[in-house]
Amino acid sequence: MITEKQIVQFDSISLDAGTTLAPVDVAYETYGELNAAKSNAILVLHAFSGDAHAAGIDKDSGNTGWWDNMIGPGKGFDTDKYHVISSNVLGGCRGTTGPISINPATGCPFAMSFPAVTIQDMVRLQKMLIDRLGIKKLLSVSGGSMGAMQALQWAVAYPDAIASAIPIAGTARHSPQQIAFNEVGRQAIMADPDWNEGNYYGHRPPARGLSVARMVGHITYMSDASMREKFGRRLRDQNQFEVESYLRYRGSQFVDRFDANSYLYITKAMDYFDLTNGHSLSAAFEGVKARFLVISFTSDWLYPSYQSLEVVRALRGRNCDVAYCELPSSYGHDAFLVNVTEQAELVRGFLASTFRERA
Amino acid sequence: MITEKQIVQFDSISLDAGTTLAPVDVAYETYGELNAAKSNAILVLHAFSGDAHAAGIDKDSGNTGWWDNMIGPGKGFDTDKYHVISSNVLGGCRGTTGPISINPATGCPFAMSFPAVTIQDMVRLQKMLIDRLGIKKLLSVSGGSMGAMQALQWAVAYPDAIASAIPIAGTARHSPQQIAFNEVGRQAIMADPDWNEGNYYGHRPPARGLSVARMVGHITYMSDASMREKFGRRLRDQNQFEVESYLRYRGSQFVDRFDANSYLYITKAMDYFDLTNGHSLSAAFEGVKARFLVISFTSDWLYPSYQSLEVVRALRGRNCDVAYCELPSSYGHDAFLVNVTEQAELVRGFLASTFRERA
Repeated sequence: MITEKQIVQFDSISLDAGTTLAPVDVAYETYGELNAAKSNAILVLHAFSGDAHAAGIDKDSGNTGWWDNMIGPGKGFDTDKYHVISSNVLGGCRGTTGPISINPATGCPFAMSFPAVTIQDMVRLQKMLIDRLGIKKLLSVSGGSMGAMQALQWAVAYPDAIASAIPIAGTARHSPQQIAFNEVGRQAIMADPDWNEGNYYGHRPPARGLSVARMVGHITYMSDASMREKFGRRLRDQNQFEVESYLRYRGSQFVDRFDANSYLYITKAMDYFDLTNGHSLSAAFEGVKARFLVISFTSDWLYPSYQSLEVVRALRGRNCDVAYCELPSSYGHDAFLVNVTEQAELVRGFLASTFRERA
Repeated sequence: MITEKQIVQFDSISLDAGTTLAPVDVAYETYGELNAAKSNAILVLHAFSGDAHAAGIDKDSGNTGWWDNMIGPGKGFDTDKYHVISSNVLGGCRGTTGPISINPATGCPFAMSFPAVTIQDMVRLQKMLIDRLGIKKLLSVSGGSMGAMQALQWAVAYPDAIASAIPIAGTARHSPQQIAFNEVGRQAIMADPDWNEGNYYGHRPPARGLSVARMVGHITYMSDASMREKFGRRLRDQNQFEVESYLRYRGSQFVDRFDANSYLYITKAMDYFDLTNGHSLSAAFEGVKARFLVISFTSDWLYPSYQSLEVVRALRGRNCDVAYCELPSSYGHDAFLVNVTEQAELVRGFLASTFRERA
């Protein structure tokens, strides 16, 4: 499946920060056919560093999509049955408007003058995209990690626009430990003199800081057990362990595909996201109408199961239709991306029953 | 109890790297009286960023020692009964020779020309100190984290020189996750242009890099639960969470008391330490004669209990006298420093029975 990114432009979007961004681009891809009733559309929501390219082989880069093992003919999100839409988030750096985009008022990149964005803003822009595509009600919204946060926000903000939600390895709000790891990444970037208060476009990017930030991220995405299995204490050479060489490589690789200012904006959006809004999660779910499939993984210590269970309890307290499954895996937070056999089975069954129910 | 650091100098020490360091200084402190038989001496071993000032109030700085809640009259290491010795490790920056020390051959600080040091080298230098103090056999050696590694190394290298060992929250070898977190810290330091290949003495130190490294460290020393308890999602002001402000403060504070090159050398020593030496841990413990009290903490995810249990099983396989206790605590790895009531009780009883047995 060869895929190609599309861009749609909107005149403007109102942001939670009280400002307006105009115009605003959204990069997106679709897989599978939309049926005549427009009742088989599923929106997948990417995690922190993901993009619109969720499945297939990108026409230009040749890269495989980040959830290609979940999206395709016969897969969890079966493109023989469903029309899958994936868009890059607001504040990102992969085609949707973000700090790297040109500010029409100045003719220069926004950099740190880009307005603060929230998970709510990201979802609002996704809703605009879905409206533009002429889809009144999505069969489902689903994503892992930050994608799960967006799925929950969809259920709360647009209860009539989704039939179901599948938040995976996510949370209704970051714990201080999650905030802390993000803050380390941000400080690493801002400590790099090449960051230059965000004004590095056209110059050398803060590659060293961004690379350190990504190294921290990778440790938190894996588990103690999966690192022992993958690396053990094997040496690459006399002076470095394999795990060190791997992390350095992944860190430096990240610099080529991600913008440091987007790192700052998106992690802040995740950290400030709090569905409870200072009240109870149960109250937040008051108007929710969707069915839910909530998934977490045993070895995920970054988004531990207790965070998914908090969501499940609050939904059940509102008498919502919610299935919860904690899947066994040693892959840590990465499990939703790499260890998908059981996850795909659950998603396939849940979507089929949701589709039947709607029909 | 007012304390004062003492320095003893040795002509030279042979290092595992095959080089000789000459001369070499050791900073140490002692608490409580050495008895006439010299049979009541205990060596406490500090963790990564600790120093010789383990207890009491330092005469010059007014600072309280890092294990003051464990060492003193009536405490776990009861200075009414025992003579406690604490020394700064080789490669450190708090009085014992390290990268910040002057290389007599050049008249300049060693910086990165300082030879690689190992946990074995650190322990060899401690043995020289104990010999110099005229103590033939220590009643016990004890420490947490890197201190536990040293305690295990003492038991293996000098079986006749210790009656007991109390390794706390430690391991016989770092897991790839532990190595990975250390590597992130090292990369953060080396990414700071002020590091300048280690040649920053007399100039601005790599404060930003060292501060980021310390922030990562602090997250790993706490637990998810203790961070939720201490910070929750409370804001310090509109733009930062309390946990962010705390980490930044602890990071910047660390810069004033720790040398970045020592950070590199000591974390490398920890990462390369492997008591199994490519064979089995049981084989490593073949000649061990000491009694053991091994302690770990339920919420310590940096040095998880399974690592202490690996040590316990190997010791039992050699028919060693070993007591093991996993203490309940929500404080994570920090527990051995802050949550000491039960730990002190265990240590007190273990030391008393060891002392009785020897007498």
